[in-house]
Amino acid sequence: MHNKTDIIEQIQDLWQHLQDQQPLVHCITNSVASNFAANVVLAIGASPAMIDNPFEAEQFAQIAGALSINTGTPTTEQTQAMFKAVKGANTAGTPWVLDPVGYGAILSWRSETVDDLLTFQPHIIRGNASEIAALAGNQSSAKGVDSTLQSDQALQHAQSLLNSSPCIAISGATDYILSQEFGIIAITGGSVLQPKVTAMGCALGAVCAAYHAVSQSSALAAIAAHCHFALAAQNAAEQTHGIGSFQVAFLDALDQLKPEDFNHIDLKRIDPKHSQLNSL
Amino acid sequence: MHNKTDIIEQIQDLWQHLQDQQPLVHCITNSVASNFAANVVLAIGASPAMIDNPFEAEQFAQIAGALSINTGTPTTEQTQAMFKAVKGANTAGTPWVLDPVGYGAILSWRSETVDDLLTFQPHIIRGNASEIAALAGNQSSAKGVDSTLQSDQALQHAQSLLNSSPCIAISGATDYILSQEFGIIAITGGSVLQPKVTAMGCALGAVCAAYHAVSQSSALAAIAAHCHFALAAQNAAEQTHGIGSFQVAFLDALDQLKPEDFNHIDLKRIDPKHSQLNSL
Amino acid sequence: MHNKTDIIEQIQDLWQHLQDQQPLVHCITNSVASNFAANVVLAIGASPAMIDNPFEAEQFAQIAGALSINTGTPTTEQTQAMFKAVKGANTAGTPWVLDPVGYGAILSWRSETVDDLLTFQPHIIRGNASEIAALAGNQSSAKGVDSTLQSDQALQHAQSLLNSSPCIAISGATDYILSQEFGIIAITGGSVLQPKVTAMGCALGAVCAAYHAVSQSSALAAIAAHCHFALAAQNAAEQTHGIGSFQVAFLDALDQLKPEDFNHIDLKRIDPKHSQLNSL
Repeated sequence: MHNKTDIIEQIQDLWQHLQDQQPLVHCITNSVASNFAANVVLAIGASPAMIDNPFEAEQFAQIAGALSINTGTPTTEQTQAMFKAVKGANTAGTPWVLDPVGYGAILSWRSETVDDLLTFQPHIIRGNASEIAALAGNQSSAKGVDSTLQSDQALQHAQSLLNSSPCIAISGATDYILSQEFGIIAITGGSVLQPKVTAMGCALGAVCAAYHAVSQSSALAAIAAHCHFALAAQNAAEQTHGIGSFQVAFLDALDQLKPEDFNHIDLKRIDPKHSQLNSL
Repeated sequence: MHNKTDIIEQIQDLWQHLQDQQPLVHCITNSVASNFAANVVLAIGASPAMIDNPFEAEQFAQIAGALSINTGTPTTEQTQAMFKAVKGANTAGTPWVLDPVGYGAILSWRSETVDDLLTFQPHIIRGNASEIAALAGNQSSAKGVDSTLQSDQALQHAQSLLNSSPCIAISGATDYILSQEFGIIAITGGSVLQPKVTAMGCALGAVCAAYHAVSQSSALAAIAAHCHFALAAQNAAEQTHGIGSFQVAFLDALDQLKPEDFNHIDLKRIDPKHSQLNSL
Repeated sequence: MHNKTDIIEQIQDLWQHLQDQQPLVHCITNSVASNFAANVVLAIGASPAMIDNPFEAEQFAQIAGALSINTGTPTTEQTQAMFKAVKGANTAGTPWVLDPVGYGAILSWRSETVDDLLTFQPHIIRGNASEIAALAGNQSSAKGVDSTLQSDQALQHAQSLLNSSPCIAISGATDYILSQEFGIIAITGGSVLQPKVTAMGCALGAVCAAYHAVSQSSALAAIAAHCHFALAAQNAAEQTHGIGSFQVAFLDALDQLKPEDFNHIDLKRIDPKHSQLNSL
């Protein structure tokens, strides 16, 4: 039903809507990511607002184009703000993304928060392989907030999370986007430098939210976001091998991406039964 | 009374004082801006200190050269710190800047905080057009924390705020600085890339404070700060078109600005009655 | 007992262990430093995790390779997290670093926190000269969180702190590392641009922790960290004179440092009685 050309055309349309509408993206994120995520959201063409107190989050989520929630460095007040924001988002029909940073046995306090947030049915759940596997109820390991699994190792586990959200996105050397609508989409690209820059994943969650602000489809928003991210990272890695200068070049590349660049994305559909890559 | 040459000479003197004295700038700012604002304050020659807890803010504001308060991501403790700091500043005669980020109907909690802070008579109020118009009691619109008005649209409204502060600064493609002392000063320059970098406005608030630490005149401090900022942004934009690399080049340019560069600033006085640009 | 060649070989071994093991570094740091410190820790080869809430800090410090505590912008919850983390670290034998940012008479609240933390015997105390002198009970002055003393002016005072910790590190144009094991080691290098970039010292504290995760010796970890930092800063300063671009080049250089680069470090032992530099 969806061949590669169709999907890419839809992505290009979303990208154009993003530039035209510059939607307001409500972010509740961690102290490490806040500046970088805001700059990333600006770079892709949207308008970030970091409203993370419990006294404003509910009302603000109602007027935002989308909401991104990230559990990287939660405080008591910020955690309260997350629930307020989700309530506001669900009341107003604002799409929202859950990025369960650090989910797992060691960080049990935030993991309980994430379990509770999950009952409010996020539109997209985005995480690394360790987080997604753990969130799906599997014994998993992680190194702090970094994954010790490859993204494909979380694929099977991730299927069960489709009960909690219409779209599950697992980031890694290959990104996997799971949904009823598109099945499993694999996006390969990006750069080996990405894991050497902090908050890249956190910023990607906010980009998913930004694309969802202009998309009816959660899965298409997540796919577009991951494609935009992977292409910009590839372009940036062509400019530099340094990890500091890569971060700078990445912001440049996110902003300078042209719609025709999406034609070059390595995007495939996977048959979950055979776990093999099928060309679309 | 103040022709352009006089003003520029006074700015150049302030810049020299800033380099000589490297004043301590007490900043209470948001989580997005904290790193960038600290680097900006260092880049212009001053010494930033982000003291934003209610247990130290009052005492610290008394020994600081100036205080900058920004309501971008307020917490309960940080809000308490703001009032403590303002009390300390007013006790000790420390000049202080209020940057009412996000002021408006949607973000009512912080707006009440700002209303209360306003009664303590900040030396400079600095904001974007939407914030200034809303603060002046006008129905206004904003996109989150970004302005949907042009800076000149807030000019008329801003006049009434001169009851609350001796100097009102509105940033935009053209910046306007209002005061009894200088009337309305318009500074045109900067770069179209500035709105694509987060926390630029927040950092400008801290720069106003830094200049005020070496200035008797609130208006002159604000004018100097906006000139320094606009010239550095112009110089940076000549180096790059990328928004990531612009941020880097901007820090370089703030630091590398030479006093003679101020001779090239596009600075005019405006007649508020006719709303026309008059050459000084 | 330790000649220069021996020390450098031990540093090179530690560096290799760091690359091989990529240890998990638990950081509780300030809002200005969090992003930069995380990127610095990634750049040297380790894995940062900013876990700064009191509900997770104790458990996390037990599984981390090392812990870094920094008092730059403490909140009530973060302060609680510091004590929980230290308790967890000491229970599990996790080495930890204390960076007493802002210690002194003006910032008395955090200074009391630091005094209490000190009773838990940090493995390394790292600070600038004003902080170390004040921590040793001497009348000292500081400009906010920046030092007004040269690092050698704190040398004598620092000796008494060896009762509280096996290793005291004072950063400045010349860094001094004090310990029973190595005596006083002086490392000269780095760049004059470093004080113009915020959070450099804070990041250095996290680097000390990262090296301690792979070292039995606190002093050797601190020496290695300061050498890595100083060499990277020198290399970065050869690339640029701009303070924004220096920060970027510094991250590149931290990552690109080669073990043989340590051969070029200016490292000396000082005789505390004569306060003279002695070649090792």
